[in-house]
Formats: sequence, C-alpha cells, structure tokens
Amino acid sequence: MLYGPRDLRFEERPDPIMVKPTDAIVRIAATCVCGSDLWPYRGIQPIAEPMPMGHEYCGVVEEVGSEVRHIKRGQFVIGSFFASDNVCPICSHGYQSSCKQAEFVGGAQAPLLRVPLADGTLVALPLQPDKEMLPDLLALSDVMGTGWFGAAAAQVAPGATVAVAGDGAVGLLAVLSARQMGAERVIAMSRHPARQQLARDFGATDIVQERGDEGAARIRDLTGGLGVDCAVECVGTQESLWQAIHATRVGGHVGYVGVPHGVSLAGEELFYEHVHLHGEPAPVRQYLPHLIKLTLNAAIRPGRVFDLVLPLAQVAEGYRAMDERRAVKALLMP
Amino acid sequence: MLYGPRDLRFEERPDPIMVKPTDAIVRIAATCVCGSDLWPYRGIQPIAEPMPMGHEYCGVVEEVGSEVRHIKRGQFVIGSFFASDNVCPICSHGYQSSCKQAEFVGGAQAPLLRVPLADGTLVALPLQPDKEMLPDLLALSDVMGTGWFGAAAAQVAPGATVAVAGDGAVGLLAVLSARQMGAERVIAMSRHPARQQLARDFGATDIVQERGDEGAARIRDLTGGLGVDCAVECVGTQESLWQAIHATRVGGHVGYVGVPHGVSLAGEELFYEHVHLHGEPAPVRQYLPHLIKLTLNAAIRPGRVFDLVLPLAQVAEGYRAMDERRAVKALLMP
Repeated sequence: MLYGPRDLRFEERPDPIMVKPTDAIVRIAATCVCGSDLWPYRGIQPIAEPMPMGHEYCGVVEEVGSEVRHIKRGQFVIGSFFASDNVCPICSHGYQSSCKQAEFVGGAQAPLLRVPLADGTLVALPLQPDKEMLPDLLALSDVMGTGWFGAAAAQVAPGATVAVAGDGAVGLLAVLSARQMGAERVIAMSRHPARQQLARDFGATDIVQERGDEGAARIRDLTGGLGVDCAVECVGTQESLWQAIHATRVGGHVGYVGVPHGVSLAGEELFYEHVHLHGEPAPVRQYLPHLIKLTLNAAIRPGRVFDLVLPLAQVAEGYRAMDERRAVKALLMP
Repeated sequence: MLYGPRDLRFEERPDPIMVKPTDAIVRIAATCVCGSDLWPYRGIQPIAEPMPMGHEYCGVVEEVGSEVRHIKRGQFVIGSFFASDNVCPICSHGYQSSCKQAEFVGGAQAPLLRVPLADGTLVALPLQPDKEMLPDLLALSDVMGTGWFGAAAAQVAPGATVAVAGDGAVGLLAVLSARQMGAERVIAMSRHPARQQLARDFGATDIVQERGDEGAARIRDLTGGLGVDCAVECVGTQESLWQAIHATRVGGHVGYVGVPHGVSLAGEELFYEHVHLHGEPAPVRQYLPHLIKLTLNAAIRPGRVFDLVLPLAQVAEGYRAMDERRAVKALLMP
C-alpha cells in the first residue's frame, strides 16, 4: 500500500472478492515493481488516498465467476494491466488497452488478485510452468509486451536501424523486441554499465551514453547524418521524447511507451520533424499468445531484467532499490 | 510583395536571374494564392522585411543552367514549393520537402520565377497543355499534392472511413484524394454551403457542420461511437488538430498538413488517445508524376478549387477575397 511519497507499507489486507460474474481470482505466483509505479512513489503523480500497488502478475486461477466460459480453476494464467473483453471493435483492432470495458487491474503486489473480464484478459498456459520460468512469464504481463509494442509502434522491420531511449526494463526489452523483429542495428542509450551489458546481451549493437540533443546528435553521427529508421521512447520525459524524435530520420517512426509526465509537443517543431508518432499504454493482451510461445520455446528470456528478488514482505526495499537505480526491476514472491 | 499585415502590393520588380548552374528560370503560365500565404498576410506570422509572395507555379522553361541535364528550354513544367535534388537519401525515402538541399521556392506570384535544383524539382509534361487545363495543373504544385499527402499520412486505404478537418482548398482536395485512394466514407467538416457542395462533388459522403469537440462527437456518432479510421487535419489550429485526434478511432491515423500556429500537444492527453500521428510540409514532388497522369487522363479535376480568376495585377484582391472567405482559392494570370 502506498500512503504517500516514498511511504510504501507492507500490511495485511482482506482477500479480494468477486465483484462481477465475469471476474476471476488469481493466486499470484510472482509479481513485481514497475517503473511506472515509481511516478506515484516519488510523488510526481499524487495520490488521493492510500493505494494498493502493482499491476503485473501471473499465477494460478483460484476461482472464476459464473459467466467465465474459457478460463478454468487451476490454470496458470498471465494477464495484462488493463482488463479487456478482447471482442469489442477496439480489441479486434488490437487496442485492448482501450477496450470499451477496459478497467485497470491494480493491487497485484499481493497474494491474491481480482481480475475483471477474465475470459478476455487472461491467457492460460498449456502447462504448469517450472519455478525457474516464473521471471520470464511474469515479464510478459507488462514490460515485455510494452517493449514489444514500442518497437511495433516504431514500425521495426527486418533490416531496420533502431534507437531505444531509456535503459529501464521496458527499454531493455524494446532492444530485445527490435532484434526479434529483425532489426539489423539497435542503438541503446544508457550510461549504466550493468544495463549496457544487458542491452548488449539482448542484442544491442551500439551504446550511446550521451543524453538529450547531444545523444540525438551522436545517433545521427552513427547513421550517416540521417538518423535511425525507428526510435522507441521508454522514459516519458520531455528530454527523452525529443531525443527520440531528433534521433529519427525524416519520415521515420517514433514509438513512445514511457508514460508522459509534463511533456508538451510544440506543433511547429513537430511539423518540421517529419516523423511518424505512435504510442500509448501498450495493448499487451494482443501480444501475450505470441510472447508466451516465444518464452516457452526459450527464444526469449525477458525475465533477465529482474536483478533483485525479494519476498513480498520486503516490497518497500524493492521500490527503494529501483528508485535509487540499484536495481533494474524487483521481482516479489508472495 | 507583402509589406506588412494586409499590405500587399503589386509592383514592378527586376526579373529573377540564375544564381547557380543547377537553376532554371520558368515563365509562369498561372500562379495562385495559398491558404498559408494568409498567415503572414494576416500578421500572424510576422515578416522582417518586404517579401515576394507565392510558391505555386507551372509554366514554360525559359532558361536552364549549365548543369541542368534533364529539364529543357520550352518544356511545360510543374514544381513544388520546396526545391529538392530528388536523389539524396531523404528524397529517396519520399521526403523531398526535407531534402538535404531543400530550398523554399518563393516569389511565384510573378511572371518569371527562379527554380533551384531544376532537375530534381521540376517535372516536365509530355505536351503543351491547353489553357483550360492550367487550373488543374497549377493545383498540383501544392494544394492537390498536400491534400494527397495528408490522406496518405492518415493511411487512407480502400474501404476506410475518413474525416477531413478544414474546408479550404487543401481540405477539399484531401476529400478528393481520400476517394481516389478508395475510401468508402468521407466526412467533410464545413459550415459553408458552396464548399460543402464542392466537397460533395469531390466525393464527400457526409458533412459535419459542428466544430471542435462538438464536431468530433458528431463524427463519433456517425461511426458507431468509434471514430474514423483516418483523419486529415488541414487547418493548423489547436482546435482543429484536437478535433481530428478526437474524431479518430483508437489505433487510427491522423495526417496533419495544416501549418501549425500556436499548437501544443500535451503528452498525457496524446498518450491516451492512441492515434498515429504523421504530418509535415508535404513532399509534393513525390506525387507529381502520378498526379500529372491522373490530371491528364481527366481522372481528377483539382482545379475546381479555384473559384476566382484574376490578372496578376489584381493580386491584392485575391488575398482579400480569400481572407474574407469570399473565395476558396484565387488563381492569378500573369
């Protein structure tokens, strides 16, 4: 529970209960702390009242409502942070995070979680995974799907040259996604040695340490003065978004998945940049079946972004470690 | 020559001269007043010194420089408002308006015009056109190509539902372009009866008179609450751009070609709109060969946007008529 800036408390709470007959209750096998959790934790995004935190989850279905048809008790499932019916016209277009019935799934940093619209939201695995697979599977619930969407929104295609702004878990997984989509060259922006190494392990071909316009200029230097075909913005600050735009070639694509805070785009400046812009809260649900397959086949190991594992009772330390950039991402075991 | 807000004067000036061996001098057959000329005319875009106006042109090549290889004296040519070499990597990607050598072609409201980078900029017709064809051909120099790019940037494809914000010449020709690209339904936004009629003639299937958020709400009503697949923004104001964004379905595409003035996009708001954004000064050069072919085959009649024809000496009346919205677009005969 977050009570205020940097005041995060582990405490006993009542178990979640079924609210609608389309709900399910999931027993969490593993959960984690998201970069976006740090916005309210740092007080940049104020909260009105104490808030149960966490929106990344995988685990075993404990109970389903009377109108749940496909998800069954006992299945191991993964869902995204937006519940979606997966059948409305918006979901059919692949934008489940804007589903007409979309509902934010909060409070996942807990042993049990209520998931609305269980049939649309959850994807069941064909098996009960080994414990070692939990980090990889948990990563699909948000960061991997978000990095994947960022790369897709930036129209990464075979042969593309890509820049990724942000060396958090999403940025690192955007590097992995871009390589999976066939990018020939992936430039990761990072000044943190351990993250640079993970970026390289995920397939980054170049590292740029400079930030802002200096970073964009460095990327232009690396690409014959033109800029990259695709840039993925995974931070959400003014500097980072413009860095991505300025690093992109005329006619190139910028995908942005960092949740913007205080960002403003001047129309005149954007007009003469000539890039394509697309972004939003990632429709992770769209990618879950594909990413689960890649993970079960060991084609990707997205769980490598977890560099800190804690029992849920030590959740506050997970936030502190990420806030202080001592950890990329903290996994929590209930 | 524009001397200041609403102070436009017809005056004798020296003929343009060749500056570089890649230049050509074109004898203007017809020129016109652009909606974007009204920004400095109205004083919204201040000018530092008296400015020769006009950037839309077609006519006969009078003289070519020693390094011009393909364009010949006597050919009838059309060019865009940005000179481009048409061979650099940016031009090769189809973004000639951002060519590495791009140079704005100004002063076209005159009998003679210097055109830089003649081989890259100008497209020669295979014939000397009849006088009746001049309006259609002249329209290709900017408004038709800009409307076409707006529809292309909005990813209009067969079967698409499209909204066009702006009932100026560019907006009307975006309607025409969208239909040429196979759009099934085109919603034109206009409260001006003559422009509504022209929009219908160009293929608009629906007219929406409301503006801003009210207009966007009306368009959502017309599209089952979802919004259009594609919106083309052809004005350049804050209200118009947000109207286009709010009228577009989740995951849809917004092409913007109105030159933005005082427009600012809040990152947070944009993030949750989930649209694709693309726009810029249109790379008209890219489309000239195709649009010339469509025009010579009488598949399109873009010159219908000219509802006022004046001798060049009466250019000031052309500006006045457009400023007061008495005319959609004024054609000027030198």
